[in-house]
This record gives sequence, structure tokens and C-alpha cells, in this order.
Amino acid sequence: MRALFAYAARDLRLETCETAAPGPGEVRVDLVRGGICGSDLHYYNHGGFGSVRLREPMILGHEVAGRVAEPGPGVEGLAPGTLVAISPSRPCGTCGECLRGLPNQCLDMRFYGSAMPFPHIQGAFRDSLTVRAEQCIPADGLSAAQASMAEPLSVCLHAVRRAGEMLGRRVLVTGCGPIGILTILAARRAGASEIIATDIAHEALDFARQAGADVTLNTLDEPDALAPYQTGKGSLDVLFECSGAEPALRGGIAALRPRGIVVQAGLSGDMALPMMQVTAKELEIRGTFRFHEEFAIAVRMMQQGLIETSLLLTHSFPLAEFSAAFATANDRTKAMKVQLEFGEA
Amino acid sequence: MRALFAYAARDLRLETCETAAPGPGEVRVDLVRGGICGSDLHYYNHGGFGSVRLREPMILGHEVAGRVAEPGPGVEGLAPGTLVAISPSRPCGTCGECLRGLPNQCLDMRFYGSAMPFPHIQGAFRDSLTVRAEQCIPADGLSAAQASMAEPLSVCLHAVRRAGEMLGRRVLVTGCGPIGILTILAARRAGASEIIATDIAHEALDFARQAGADVTLNTLDEPDALAPYQTGKGSLDVLFECSGAEPALRGGIAALRPRGIVVQAGLSGDMALPMMQVTAKELEIRGTFRFHEEFAIAVRMMQQGLIETSLLLTHSFPLAEFSAAFATANDRTKAMKVQLEFGEA
Amino acid sequence: MRALFAYAARDLRLETCETAAPGPGEVRVDLVRGGICGSDLHYYNHGGFGSVRLREPMILGHEVAGRVAEPGPGVEGLAPGTLVAISPSRPCGTCGECLRGLPNQCLDMRFYGSAMPFPHIQGAFRDSLTVRAEQCIPADGLSAAQASMAEPLSVCLHAVRRAGEMLGRRVLVTGCGPIGILTILAARRAGASEIIATDIAHEALDFARQAGADVTLNTLDEPDALAPYQTGKGSLDVLFECSGAEPALRGGIAALRPRGIVVQAGLSGDMALPMMQVTAKELEIRGTFRFHEEFAIAVRMMQQGLIETSLLLTHSFPLAEFSAAFATANDRTKAMKVQLEFGEA
Amino acid sequence: MRALFAYAARDLRLETCETAAPGPGEVRVDLVRGGICGSDLHYYNHGGFGSVRLREPMILGHEVAGRVAEPGPGVEGLAPGTLVAISPSRPCGTCGECLRGLPNQCLDMRFYGSAMPFPHIQGAFRDSLTVRAEQCIPADGLSAAQASMAEPLSVCLHAVRRAGEMLGRRVLVTGCGPIGILTILAARRAGASEIIATDIAHEALDFARQAGADVTLNTLDEPDALAPYQTGKGSLDVLFECSGAEPALRGGIAALRPRGIVVQAGLSGDMALPMMQVTAKELEIRGTFRFHEEFAIAVRMMQQGLIETSLLLTHSFPLAEFSAAFATANDRTKAMKVQLEFGEA
Repeated sequence: MRALFAYAARDLRLETCETAAPGPGEVRVDLVRGGICGSDLHYYNHGGFGSVRLREPMILGHEVAGRVAEPGPGVEGLAPGTLVAISPSRPCGTCGECLRGLPNQCLDMRFYGSAMPFPHIQGAFRDSLTVRAEQCIPADGLSAAQASMAEPLSVCLHAVRRAGEMLGRRVLVTGCGPIGILTILAARRAGASEIIATDIAHEALDFARQAGADVTLNTLDEPDALAPYQTGKGSLDVLFECSGAEPALRGGIAALRPRGIVVQAGLSGDMALPMMQVTAKELEIRGTFRFHEEFAIAVRMMQQGLIETSLLLTHSFPLAEFSAAFATANDRTKAMKVQLEFGEA
Repeated sequence: MRALFAYAARDLRLETCETAAPGPGEVRVDLVRGGICGSDLHYYNHGGFGSVRLREPMILGHEVAGRVAEPGPGVEGLAPGTLVAISPSRPCGTCGECLRGLPNQCLDMRFYGSAMPFPHIQGAFRDSLTVRAEQCIPADGLSAAQASMAEPLSVCLHAVRRAGEMLGRRVLVTGCGPIGILTILAARRAGASEIIATDIAHEALDFARQAGADVTLNTLDEPDALAPYQTGKGSLDVLFECSGAEPALRGGIAALRPRGIVVQAGLSGDMALPMMQVTAKELEIRGTFRFHEEFAIAVRMMQQGLIETSLLLTHSFPLAEFSAAFATANDRTKAMKVQLEFGEA
Repeated sequence: MRALFAYAARDLRLETCETAAPGPGEVRVDLVRGGICGSDLHYYNHGGFGSVRLREPMILGHEVAGRVAEPGPGVEGLAPGTLVAISPSRPCGTCGECLRGLPNQCLDMRFYGSAMPFPHIQGAFRDSLTVRAEQCIPADGLSAAQASMAEPLSVCLHAVRRAGEMLGRRVLVTGCGPIGILTILAARRAGASEIIATDIAHEALDFARQAGADVTLNTLDEPDALAPYQTGKGSLDVLFECSGAEPALRGGIAALRPRGIVVQAGLSGDMALPMMQVTAKELEIRGTFRFHEEFAIAVRMMQQGLIETSLLLTHSFPLAEFSAAFATANDRTKAMKVQLEFGEA
Repeated sequence: MRALFAYAARDLRLETCETAAPGPGEVRVDLVRGGICGSDLHYYNHGGFGSVRLREPMILGHEVAGRVAEPGPGVEGLAPGTLVAISPSRPCGTCGECLRGLPNQCLDMRFYGSAMPFPHIQGAFRDSLTVRAEQCIPADGLSAAQASMAEPLSVCLHAVRRAGEMLGRRVLVTGCGPIGILTILAARRAGASEIIATDIAHEALDFARQAGADVTLNTLDEPDALAPYQTGKGSLDVLFECSGAEPALRGGIAALRPRGIVVQAGLSGDMALPMMQVTAKELEIRGTFRFHEEFAIAVRMMQQGLIETSLLLTHSFPLAEFSAAFATANDRTKAMKVQLEFGEA
């Protein structure tokens, strides 16, 4: 079986690895599709992000779907051949955070393809993978390409939930990469009545319009584009900051009305915040991180047609062409979501 | 000008009345459509509900739309001919509840067509009406029939907001009259992932299905229809009780999981609640009443196509045929929303 | 070792039972004090409450404190002789409710002295008991009598938390038995600025005054005593209903301002609620049930002197005099909290 | 009548001004005491803070109490001689924020002694002042010195409310000036079970201990003093940041557990935040600004003895000695709260 290892920045290698036979409560899955995430790109481009660095070879990937190859003893409802979306979230279920109802904050989380802990948690860009049955969500009615969108969609469903009640709210989304676009879809699904999206790339804003943004603004061409929303004490209810860029956060904060909510989804290092505005307008800045129960909800919502993610799927490449895949994913003027195709070509 | 007065139970009379010239900040509107609400039916059938009784002749009606006839001095943005949805919510803006941000709880509310205060607040089933400019929401792109749905839709947007964050929730709606159907639409718009609807009339459940309910159950034919949701401590997240019927509330409570939320929208007298379940499952029962800022949101959402209410519009009658209109509205096997047509025939 | 069994209504028997040797992570505790709770009285007086009935002999009791007799293998920090308050809350830690962060809603809860499940969960009115180490909270600085108050205090800390932010709130407590009195203490600790307490017994209201209630009202002598708070739409923020009596709940609902909160702590069967008020004032009725993490907080707060429960401790009896103890506990004109004394007399 | 004007940094002048006769609903008050606030010091030391600068002479002061001299027509309940605490919060009552229930965010706020708007809002350090009756809260039982503490206490009650439910929480307060000390008192009143306080001045920490902080840490002497709370993902529930200093905020963020809450009370310019921690731990940073209804609560709580602020009152000076007063207030090693004494000496 093949697996895609990151050894260091710009050093990906396709190698072979074994797949464990499924034990009780486990399932062996033959992967079909896997999406390249921003964090995969960070490992590829920079060998990590912030203080998180590759310290040993690590299989990348955590946005995957495949078909059940072999259910282990005692597993029901997952017959061979079933298409499943695989949740990369594997909390321990016993630590203090898990028992507080915060599995995404698990103190012993084993999330696929993450160099946060050491030894690193190996990822899912591989032809075959043995996982716990509860990580496999049947995805009948979806394509494997769609099913592998469940993971980034889950991130965005969780982010929207972090903002609280959304019906009729006026929303700003800064940064229209895959997370921004899926956040637009999720916020609209949750009832946002007006969605303004900003980016510095025209192509990204085209996607935002397709996703249903009511207003799209290029803040590179027009740095003051948000000015109409910033008059007085500001006018918008919620900012989903999906760019990780300080100017986007600062501009968004100025556009929020008193008691407005910032959900910070974009990962970044330190950012200089205008604390006088935060204090005087009594804003709330809330972090959002990963997801847990939202994964099954994401699959279900795509199955019901309540959220349609296909517009993001711009490219796919056979696993062997991983170099082209990562190069394409790096080019925001061409690509939104790039996927790898697993299995024998 | 004609107006439809209720004198007592089963005693409606079409009479004439004057329309005041619009003062500063006011607008005279020629009405086009007006929907018959459940409370209008209560006045018609019973002369009131609970302790609220007709004590003088009162013009009925509060779900209305029309065209601007004459803007008063200083009014901008409401040119003659503009189609407007008219909000019947007129809080005082100065009492303690208004200043707490709860205008729908205003201590001096003047809501159209209500016998709660005395003298009663006269309603809007009349050919012409002078209102405050801020009660008029331009409704370009909608029909007058749709625009007059803004009021009951507002009630349901407010009810859904009362339940808090809705994305991915499993929801039960008991009672599929107009409020139940609009609640289904609003809950879906707010991101409910599964909607179960119950009623005792097949016709009502047909509407629920059209509105997008995932499961519809007739609790007259099958009293134990909710049993699958009631196993263990229950499984659903939210109950919108829209029937005002005690058995519906009790059955729904049994289907809620611990910490589940009941939003009580249906008006009723006393109801015997299973308090042991409320206490032991730590449920929350929340009342919901009218709306305020949701009115403009309702118009906007219909304009954007985010909520489509047309499926409820089953009948309309010229004002002169008000008797047929009320008789039809009384028949749940035939009618969902019945409207009156104003203006010269 | 002796244990106090309930066989049926009015049939308590002091018998002997064995105490298991402590396994890994367990502790054997020699009990010192145990308070008689309202549910113990229900078993004694009626053989149960609601649908919960004694179906086999059950050891009563769940408000207990004792001294460590023998720590099992691997247990640290619980040296022999340490005074500990024992939490009767033993959630499974693996069910869906535990993993949602709701251990008090555990689907497989093993709470001491409860006939809800069958076989019943045996209680803690016994000379010696083997428990999990994490159920034992060291209580240095407290008397055993105080330490055994941790359990009912935990119930009330949880109830007050269910009401949300409390600082500066105007609060009504209906029912001034031990739970009502401890709720007064907890609400004051949480910052309530005005506390009104009602009961039908003068003696209970005397305790309420000692506990710091600002106003005490006897609703038997003066049925309209709450009238000043019920004018207009009502004026109080929160009602803690601790009596389980329908008239108390109804009177309190009338005294709540719009969006007021009812926390229903008193256990009862069905109650007829004035739903028109609940709906029109948009009240919230929230159940509260037991506790979990609040137990350690209760011990700590008593140790710090932040909450002083001693005023409730009116009587104690050697275990052998259990009949006198239960008779006294039944007499609200004499007793507030009655405790049993364990160990060799 | 004398009034204390700030002309520019280090340029205070005692001059005379007229006091208007009280109109309907107004009251003329002869001031007795006025506390010097951090913002008064900013005007004195720097001529403003951030972008807020003195642009014309402005009377300082907003923490004042006095005795009713002359009630205007129609004013009841404020007899001459009554000691009143005067709320400096004067929202308009008609703007969008007021009608959302956020008077402290009023778009046309006229808060005493503020150079935010231009013309500036003149302050209350003057022998006599005419105010609206509703700004006057009778303060029987308090000294004028205590009554003038109602204002900063209100700020802190509001800050604690912004953190939500507080009972049993573990709290960190960074910065032990008057706002930090009053926040300790308010958080304890609201039920915090453990309070850790940090500062860089030993004298400030002495006050924190007197105010009831369980642990006090000098982060100048021992920069890693918070390390025990920062292990793993952190352990504290709430941070009240009262210093406006970036290192304090950063250290506190590292000590917060997942989903912990930061209430930012200290005013500051931009601060560089560790956004990776905010995102990954899903923290919430909430601004807090002024107060409104908390003012009357502050007076009441002091009257009831629920919060005792006297320990902060370290110095007072006759108005004529304003130079000594401001010099003293500037010296954190000597002074906590410095007050001015009004009226003929």
C-alpha cells in the first residue's frame, strides 16, 4: 500500500506502508479521495506552522473518503463496498475535556496528519487505512469527492455554531479560501440574511459569489471597501475571520456593531488587535478549532442537499501525481479544493 | 372606506370608517391583501380567547400589505405606489421593557386588532390605513399576497430564535397550521438537520411535507407515533409546540433528550405538565410572543428567496365576501392561509 | 456492620451487611454523619414518589461524610483518618450524556439510595462503605455534620447555576425546607441583590430570615402576599421553585417579569401551568436535577467560609434511634435538617 | 461655584462656573465627595489616551456623591439633604443601541468628564451640579465617600456580568488598581471560589489580599508565577484583565483552560495577542465598557453590606488641594482611591 509522507518542507515522498488488520470495532477502508487542506500545504511549503514543526516523517492528510474493505469483528452496518466519509477526530473519551463535552479539546487527541504531538499522528493519504467504526459515516448518495468534503465542512459548521444563533444576522467573511467559502455556505444554511465576503484575489471572490455571498469586496484593489459598514460604531453582527491575516481582522472589527462577535477560524501567529475597539464596543472574539459531532451532521446535510459543496471541487489528481496536486493547490488563482485519487490507477 | 368589524362571536360587519390624513412621519396606505390569523378566528368564533374578550366593536386584522397612497411630511423612501408590508408591532419605545431591548414585551404595545387592552387596538382589515413610516417595509419583488405573509413569518422567525443556535439540530414541530408550517420553514432555514412534524389532520401534514419536514406523523391515527423518539431519555433537541394542545406538548416533552428545549408558540389556557420529566431531564420551556425586528428580516428573506411562503396561500376572497373567507379559514381540511382582497373590486 | 434498609412505607429495619475490601482506586470509609433527605422521607412515608417505588429492600441515604478507614491500592492523598464528604454521584463516564458533559444526566447513573433503576442502587446509611476515591472530597476544617451538608448544598449550587448569571438579580424562593434554605444561601453567594422567600410554615420562614432572605412571606396566612411583585407584567428576575407545590409555582410565575426564569427544583407530579403567561411573557422554565462537579465546590466553599450551612443542622440521632430521627424529620415545625450518627455508640 | 478644569496635560485649574436651576425632572445637588479615576489621571498626565485628546477645557470627574440642594418641579423622593450617589451615565434613550437594551453603548452618550465627543462632556468635579432625577440614587446608610465608590463598583459589576455565570469559578485578576480590587470584590460576591490576583507592585497586592484574593502573585519579582496554572492547556475559567498591559493579558491567556473567558476591562491601545492559543483553545475575549443599571445595584449592595468598598479609600483632599490629590493618586505605592472633598472648607 502506498502512503504520502512529508519529510520536510518541499520534501514529499510516496512510499509503502502496511495496513493493520481490523480488530474488534475497527474497519479497514480502501480510500478513494482525499482533499488537500491548508495545514497539509503548510507542512509541504514550510515544514509546519508556528511552533508546530515536522520532527519525523509524517503521512499527510485528514480529509478522506473511501469504501469499506473489511469490517472487523462485531462491526455492524458497514458492509464491504459502503462509501464512507472518515472523521479524522479521535478524542480519548476519558480526559477532563472529553468529559466536559469538549471532545475537540481532548488532551490526548489523535487527529490524523498532525505534528502537534510527538510522535506525530500519522495521516490518511494512503491507499488503505484501518479506523474505528465510529469514525466511518456512511455516505450513500454522495460521490467520494463530496464525501471527502465532510471534514472541512465540519470545521465550518463548528465555526458557525460558535457564533451562536444566526437567523437573520448580517455576516462578514474575511478570506475566501476553502474554509471561507464553506463558512459562507454554512452561515447561509444557518440563516444569515446578509453575507459580505472579502479577499484579495478576484478568483476567490468569484467562488464567494457562487456560494451565495450577497456582496463581495476586493480589499487589495479597494482597501476602504468596508468603509460603508464601519460608519458610527459599525453595523455588522458577526465576523468569521478565515484568512489569518491581521489587516482582515482589524478591518472586520471596525465593521462590527457593539456586542458584535468575531469567530477566529484562520490560524495565525500573534496579531496586533485594536483593543480599544474590543473593549469600548464590548466585542467578543471567539476561537474555533476543529469539530466533533459536526462531522456526521456535515455528511447528512450534504446527503439531504441542504449544503452543496461541489462548487469547491476544482481539481483532482491520481496519488502518483502528488507533486502536480500540491503545486496546483498552492495557486489560489487556479484552485479552490484539490483532491488526490487513491486506489489502483 | 370599508373596515371589517367584529362585534361579538359570529357577528362580523363590514362598515365604513375614516382614514386620517398622514401627519409627519406617517404614511397612508391603500391595503391590497390581508391574511386571516388564528386570533382573528378566535374573535370570530368565540368573541375572544382566555380572558381576552371583545368589549367593544373592533376592526380585525394584522397581517396586511398595501401600496403607499400618500406619504406624510418628512417621509422619504416611500413613494406613492410602493408595495409595503405593514408591521402591526407598535411598541412605545420608552417603557422599561422597550429600553431593555424587548419591544415585543412593551408595556404599552399598540398591536393591531387586539382586544387585550381596553379600549381595544383597532385592526387593519380596512381599505385604507394611516401608519408610521417605520412600520412600512418596502416589498419590491414580492406579490401583495406574499408581503402579507411577513407577519406570521416574523412570529416564527422569533420563535426559532428563542430556541437558540439551530444548525444541525433535530427538531419536532407539533401542530401544522400556518404557524407550524412557517416554523418548519424557519427552522430549516436556520439549519435544522431533521424535522419531524405531527398533526391530527392529513391535509395539514401534506403541507408539512411540502414545507420540507423529513418525517410527518398523524397522532390521531397513530397515538404512539413518537415512541421511537421517546426511548431512553428521549432523542430530539428542540420542540416547537404550535398546537396549543396539551397532549402534543406532553408527547413532545417525552421525546426530548436531556436539556432539550421546548418553545411554546401555541396559545392556550392552563396545561398540565409532566414536571417530573421537566425537572429530571432538565428541560427548558420557553415562551415566545410576537416579534419586532424580525419583521424586516422576514420581508428581506422572502425577497432573497431564502424562505418561500407561497405554498401556504390557499385561498383569497374579496373583502365583501368576508363570510365565505372566515368559513373557509375555519375548515382545516381545506384551507391553510386565507386572505382578504382589499380595494375597489 | 449496620445498615438502614427501607422495606416498604413505614418499614425501616436496621440490619447488618458486609463492606467490600477496597480495590484499586477505591477507599473504605467509616461513616460519621448522614443527613435525611426529602427523598429518604418519601421512601419512608410512601414507599417512593411518583412512579418510583421500592421493589426490593434498599439501604437509604446519600448525604454522608466519614473518615477514611482503608485506602485501596494506588490511592493517594486519602490517608486513614481523613474526614471526607462522599459524593453519591457515580456517572458511568462513557454514555452519550456523560460525553456531552452532562454527567448528572448519565444514562447509567448509580446514585446512592435510589429506587429509580432496578435492581435499586443501595444507599449510604451504613457504618462503613467502600467507594471510589474520586467520590471522596477531603473536608479538613469542617465537622462531619457540615461535611454531610455538601450533598444538598451541591443540589442548590447546581440549581443556581441553571439560572445563569445572578449578580444583582431579584430572586424569589418558594418553599423553605432544606433545599429552599440552601438555595437562599447559594443565590446570595452568587450575588442576588434581593431575595424574597415564601412558605406556609412560620418556622421555615424563620430559617429563611436567618439564611439572609430580605423578605419572608407566609402565603398560608396571606394568600396575596406576592401581589406587590405581580403588578403590571411582574417584577422579579428569577424564581427558584423548591416546594413542588402548584400554587407556589403559579404565584411565582405571576411575579416574574418578561423573560424571567423559573428553576424548578421541587420534585412533583403533573402541575397545571398558566401557559398563557409563560407564552406571553416569554418566561423560561428550567428543570434542575442533582449535580456533579458542584460537590467539590460545595466542600471548598464551606471550608472557605463562603457559605455557612450550620444554621440548618437542627437535630442528630444515633443510628439506632432511626425511628425518632425520621419522625423528627417529618415534622416541619420542629426540624430543618436531621442527621444520623454512625459508628459504635 | 468652583469647578476643576483640565486644560491640557499637567494643566489643571480651579475656576468658577454657574449651576443651572433645576428644570422639571431635574435636581440640583451640592457635591460632597468625588473619586479620581484612571481616566482623570490620563487627562491630567497625558491630556488624553489613545485617540481621545483634550481639545477644549473640560471639567474632570464622574465618581461623585452629594446632597440634594433643590429638587426641580415634579421630582419626588429626593428631599433636600438626601445623600445621593450620582450616576454619570446619561444615554439618550432613543438611539438604536438604547433600544437594543445596550444603554452603555448609546450612540449619543453624555457621560460626565469625557473627551470622546466634541464638544466634550463636562464633568462633575464641582461644588454644585444639576442632574436628572433618575441619575440620583439615594444612599442612606452610606458615607459620601462610600457613595462615590458606586461608579467604579458599577464598572466592575458590569465586567463580572460580562463573564456570565460565576458561581464556583476559578478566576484570575491581572492588575490590582482600583478596578482590579473592585473586580475581586465583585467576582467574590458573584460566587468565584478561587481568585488569583497579579500585579507588579507589592502594595497593590496587599490590597488584593485584603479584598479576599486567595492567591497573590508579583509578576515583576517572579515572571513565571503563573506557570502552575499554565500546565497542559491551562486551568482557570475566567481572566479579568484590569491592567491594560500586554504581558498580563498574554500570561493570563496561557493560564486559561479551553473555552476560558477573558474579560478585557483595562483600556489600552493595540496589543499583540497569541491568536494560535485563542483559536486552538477556543477562548472568548469579551470587552466590557462602563455600565448602566448596575449603578443602582452597586449602591444597594453597599447598603446591604454585600460588598464593602471602604478598604480602597486611602486618601482625601479638599478640592483646593487638587494638586496634592492628583500627585498622590499617581503614586501606586501609596494610594489606592483618592477622593476630593467639595463644599466650603
